Amino acid sequence: MRIGILTSGGDCPGLNAVIRGAVLKGIQINGQEFVGFRDGWRGVVEDDLVPLGRKDIQGISKQGGTILGTSRTNPFEGEKGGVDNIAAMMERRGIDAIVAIGGEGTLAAAKRLTDAGLKIVGVPKTVDNDLGATDYTFGFDTAVQIAVDAMDRLRTTGESHSRCMVAEVMGRHVGWIALHSGMAAGAHAILIPEQATSIEQLAEWVKSAYDRGRAPLVVVAEGFVPDHENDAHSERGLDAFGRPRLGGIGERLAPMIEEATGIETRATTLGHIQRGGTPSAYDRVLATRLGMAASDSVNEGRWGRMVALRGTDIVHVSFEEALGSLKVVPQERYDEAAILFG
Amino acid sequence: MRIGILTSGGDCPGLNAVIRGAVLKGIQINGQEFVGFRDGWRGVVEDDLVPLGRKDIQGISKQGGTILGTSRTNPFEGEKGGVDNIAAMMERRGIDAIVAIGGEGTLAAAKRLTDAGLKIVGVPKTVDNDLGATDYTFGFDTAVQIAVDAMDRLRTTGESHSRCMVAEVMGRHVGWIALHSGMAAGAHAILIPEQATSIEQLAEWVKSAYDRGRAPLVVVAEGFVPDHENDAHSERGLDAFGRPRLGGIGERLAPMIEEATGIETRATTLGHIQRGGTPSAYDRVLATRLGMAASDSVNEGRWGRMVALRGTDIVHVSFEEALGSLKVVPQERYDEAAILFG
Amino acid sequence: MRIGILTSGGDCPGLNAVIRGAVLKGIQINGQEFVGFRDGWRGVVEDDLVPLGRKDIQGISKQGGTILGTSRTNPFEGEKGGVDNIAAMMERRGIDAIVAIGGEGTLAAAKRLTDAGLKIVGVPKTVDNDLGATDYTFGFDTAVQIAVDAMDRLRTTGESHSRCMVAEVMGRHVGWIALHSGMAAGAHAILIPEQATSIEQLAEWVKSAYDRGRAPLVVVAEGFVPDHENDAHSERGLDAFGRPRLGGIGERLAPMIEEATGIETRATTLGHIQRGGTPSAYDRVLATRLGMAASDSVNEGRWGRMVALRGTDIVHVSFEEALGSLKVVPQERYDEAAILFG
Amino acid sequence: MRIGILTSGGDCPGLNAVIRGAVLKGIQINGQEFVGFRDGWRGVVEDDLVPLGRKDIQGISKQGGTILGTSRTNPFEGEKGGVDNIAAMMERRGIDAIVAIGGEGTLAAAKRLTDAGLKIVGVPKTVDNDLGATDYTFGFDTAVQIAVDAMDRLRTTGESHSRCMVAEVMGRHVGWIALHSGMAAGAHAILIPEQATSIEQLAEWVKSAYDRGRAPLVVVAEGFVPDHENDAHSERGLDAFGRPRLGGIGERLAPMIEEATGIETRATTLGHIQRGGTPSAYDRVLATRLGMAASDSVNEGRWGRMVALRGTDIVHVSFEEALGSLKVVPQERYDEAAILFG
Repeated sequence: MRIGILTSGGDCPGLNAVIRGAVLKGIQINGQEFVGFRDGWRGVVEDDLVPLGRKDIQGISKQGGTILGTSRTNPFEGEKGGVDNIAAMMERRGIDAIVAIGGEGTLAAAKRLTDAGLKIVGVPKTVDNDLGATDYTFGFDTAVQIAVDAMDRLRTTGESHSRCMVAEVMGRHVGWIALHSGMAAGAHAILIPEQATSIEQLAEWVKSAYDRGRAPLVVVAEGFVPDHENDAHSERGLDAFGRPRLGGIGERLAPMIEEATGIETRATTLGHIQRGGTPSAYDRVLATRLGMAASDSVNEGRWGRMVALRGTDIVHVSFEEALGSLKVVPQERYDEAAILFG
Repeated sequence: MRIGILTSGGDCPGLNAVIRGAVLKGIQINGQEFVGFRDGWRGVVEDDLVPLGRKDIQGISKQGGTILGTSRTNPFEGEKGGVDNIAAMMERRGIDAIVAIGGEGTLAAAKRLTDAGLKIVGVPKTVDNDLGATDYTFGFDTAVQIAVDAMDRLRTTGESHSRCMVAEVMGRHVGWIALHSGMAAGAHAILIPEQATSIEQLAEWVKSAYDRGRAPLVVVAEGFVPDHENDAHSERGLDAFGRPRLGGIGERLAPMIEEATGIETRATTLGHIQRGGTPSAYDRVLATRLGMAASDSVNEGRWGRMVALRGTDIVHVSFEEALGSLKVVPQERYDEAAILFG
Repeated sequence: MRIGILTSGGDCPGLNAVIRGAVLKGIQINGQEFVGFRDGWRGVVEDDLVPLGRKDIQGISKQGGTILGTSRTNPFEGEKGGVDNIAAMMERRGIDAIVAIGGEGTLAAAKRLTDAGLKIVGVPKTVDNDLGATDYTFGFDTAVQIAVDAMDRLRTTGESHSRCMVAEVMGRHVGWIALHSGMAAGAHAILIPEQATSIEQLAEWVKSAYDRGRAPLVVVAEGFVPDHENDAHSERGLDAFGRPRLGGIGERLAPMIEEATGIETRATTLGHIQRGGTPSAYDRVLATRLGMAASDSVNEGRWGRMVALRGTDIVHVSFEEALGSLKVVPQERYDEAAILFG
Repeated sequence: MRIGILTSGGDCPGLNAVIRGAVLKGIQINGQEFVGFRDGWRGVVEDDLVPLGRKDIQGISKQGGTILGTSRTNPFEGEKGGVDNIAAMMERRGIDAIVAIGGEGTLAAAKRLTDAGLKIVGVPKTVDNDLGATDYTFGFDTAVQIAVDAMDRLRTTGESHSRCMVAEVMGRHVGWIALHSGMAAGAHAILIPEQATSIEQLAEWVKSAYDRGRAPLVVVAEGFVPDHENDAHSERGLDAFGRPRLGGIGERLAPMIEEATGIETRATTLGHIQRGGTPSAYDRVLATRLGMAASDSVNEGRWGRMVALRGTDIVHVSFEEALGSLKVVPQERYDEAAILFG
């Protein structure tokens, strides 16, 4: 069988380990051969392929990013997109099946293509860990570790200056990275999109930590929205003066905390360093196992299904199940973490 | 309720996070107070206690080792040991229950004491991840990460000299650390106690990697025993000349590989660096959650039970279940990893 | 002799190693005893002291920040400040001499106090490495290493998305951190305050790297000012619309690069993580040696002098010499680095 | 001009940065072109060359090891070795000059070849930092940092078990790595080849640290020889029973310390991890600058000279000067470090 692999959406530590796992298992056990689509769906619709042999994947599992490149191209848009064109390209290229490594959008597209008769299996990819039907997604552990390393550094500078330090981490829609990195770093407050925390509550946490002689550490997910920004202006991304709001939530929170507590506060936005570079050992193992399982999925003709982690096992779940809903931080997990604040 | 906490056996990254989690949850939610026994069961039988208040646990979750100290003391030995003495000490000190953080031996002792009527809950601790009834134990992830960082370094020196590099990791009875670190580092051979690999097979793996232009990386668990050492001499820890065998399995394997393949081979024994220092973010989160759950176990009177990880949940299992059997590497997990060798 | 130590200004990795080095050398060799002033000059003018014995400095050299705390208090301001008050406090407290660890401002203050007859020796502290009369200052190596680790991560995400990545590092007045981290990370452009680089030149570097198939990496010091911001508006910190300019230079450069090159560009501001956390081995050794030398300076009565690094030797230089001028990046060092851009 | 580059002897972090620096400077400024000899002098005598263009050196400065490979081949041995054969090969290949990156042996060979009329410039390479005429050699900083990271881990396990931990680091003939890593890690004893420390003195240091409530950390260079091994047996590498001595000095010291102090002692040999993997930022900058300077040396016809670091400058020194003598740890530097033991 001839398989095309693609990596789509934002890059994520572990993508190369998935590719390596799939190719090694496929070549040596499942009698498969592989090609790579360049830059995700762009390579599919533009027929941009690279060979993917054993040599090409040597030693890549510790490399960050993706050797295939990635993009946010929508496979149904443009004159070269759509089911028929993709089917024709696969026919022309002699590609029997596609292994699509990507997030919500990619899996949704994969579902549409599968429903239309194409042979596709999925590998879930989201550094935010916000996908249901899998305990964890690769890349998440690395992102959390990078954030915690940074927070360990922020604490010593905070303590030396008796400052409150705010660390903004990834998480547009869910707070998993903030929750885990905050718990690991001993944060005195964790703000996530799932929880509408008031500035008053935040100020109370910060003050009580400060009064205990600690340099308060506040961890905030980029997608957190403070009450008072929940208004027409904010929805349009405008500030109080009606001008485009600049800076992330971390930078906007710092002055609010300073005003509400009188404690000097500084913000740091970790940004892209959370998703690049060498994956953690945990992510390399998980990603490698998922890649190998994806090769098996093709071998067994499990079209329309993605591989996932359940406990210590790799399982297969339907795209429907996977796409069912965003995996948010449950109330009990947040409450559990909140006990450590006070 | 007044609770005594102890950490017993070999140290393990995350012990302090367990202590912090238990104390914070206990003080703030469960109305408990805490004391610490110094050096595990030694502190119990010798009545050596330290106060364990909120101040004492500030910022310790990122510290390696254990602030309480540890030892391999057996609580049933010595004139001050045994159920009655321990019960009397608890009575005298007004200690209602004990949270015992330790491995197989500690949990077995805890079981005997519980069966005798004492109030004890357990927290599993084994850097080797060899305990049943829990998906993972804290400390394991850190050990694997440290091993992988070292292997990433060994590879570049191996490649520069076209050498085979042997890395000996922890794992006296099971190969979990070797399996995960080897998978993550892209090892060309992984040797674990559960698998009787012949030197011929090993040489074949090494040669085939070498012939593909790679610098072979061999990961071996300290407990692996090569066929030819499975004899009377070896059982008594003697070498072929009947003299005490010196050096670990890694150092003993290197010359065997060199002789069998003609490829220059060097061994490195990672040793104690695998179990010390700052825990990984994964271990800090897991250990903190286990500690909090232990405080709840006491609150709910779950005597004779230990906390454990199942998927993403913290559950409670009986000591019986936990002590049932050593969690070895299953054949399918080894076969999965072996696909990556060739 | 009784010595008071203070750490002043922004925190810097290695401060604790200086303190430890001075106290150990002083207690064991020079027959000195020590106290610490809390929060730099604030502790001096407010008579806020802590004992500084052998126990207090155990194991602190690997801790980031400063155990004494720091502030930006000016010792000549306020009713409790000034030479006479400080002299009186020293008299009252039986303090014979002060070891002042700080930057330009602190050393200038120390000079004034020394000129007025107080016994003070200095230890240079600037993470920016912008102080003359010393080859390097402690903290600089750590900051550069942290920046490089972050850039290594940014590169893989840039390469996966074919993006230009901009990394903003510390350096308000000089570009040493940008120069060294950029050279180490293989940057395609380095922008520093000492060099008036045009957006056209920057765009050319970025495009040529992109055309060679690289994901361009731009390293910019926070103090770099683009030509077109060199106007009345900018001097007042206003943007083109006359409103307060928000965001650092990195964030402001990204859209300029994108517009000038058509290449998608993302910025990351490393911020406070560069100055916190465990010092590098290099900085621990340098800071420890400087601290020990400071104890000797007091012993030898070298008032009005600071310790410094020359080659591999620790030397003593007068405050005058040290304060002579800001150590900027020489043209030849920038040209040397620029060869690596193209 | 056409230049051949070679890397010889043990690998060392930074070798690739030297290669990259030389090639980039040479191609862009000095109008040079490059080829690489594979595996050091072996490639020279066996005429084994690889092209070394701009593409070949992209992104290699953060890679450990050497992309050219290395060996311990002596260029004067074998029928294909010697001045005439090498001169003929250079003639045949159109190679005008050689940049030899290596240690004492390589530079000595380079000197002989230069004396015989060949055009060679050198770049000093020794992870042990034992070469005179340069303040530091690249690779040393990385090795020290790796050792210190490991020691930071060993300390927490030592403290948890109240054990003495012995860390064996590189340094066959000199103790620079032991001295710097020991100072940075806060070692209670440092044993180096330059200093004949008695077991009694060592035991005293260990006990005094233990009595102060510390877990003693002993750092020993692999080349240190205890008094009682200074006998005929030892010189022949035999143990007291006349059998081949197995294990490094660290493993041999542990039982001696345990016997002399009664303190449980464990040894760890860091071994090859000290010389592999990503170079530190310091070493990347130093190595890059040395490589660029080597290209200039060729351009300026500085045959028989090597590039070196003096303070913050790159200078040129003759092979004679460089080969003059082994750079040992001076007594005052050891005494300085010893103050921190007690």
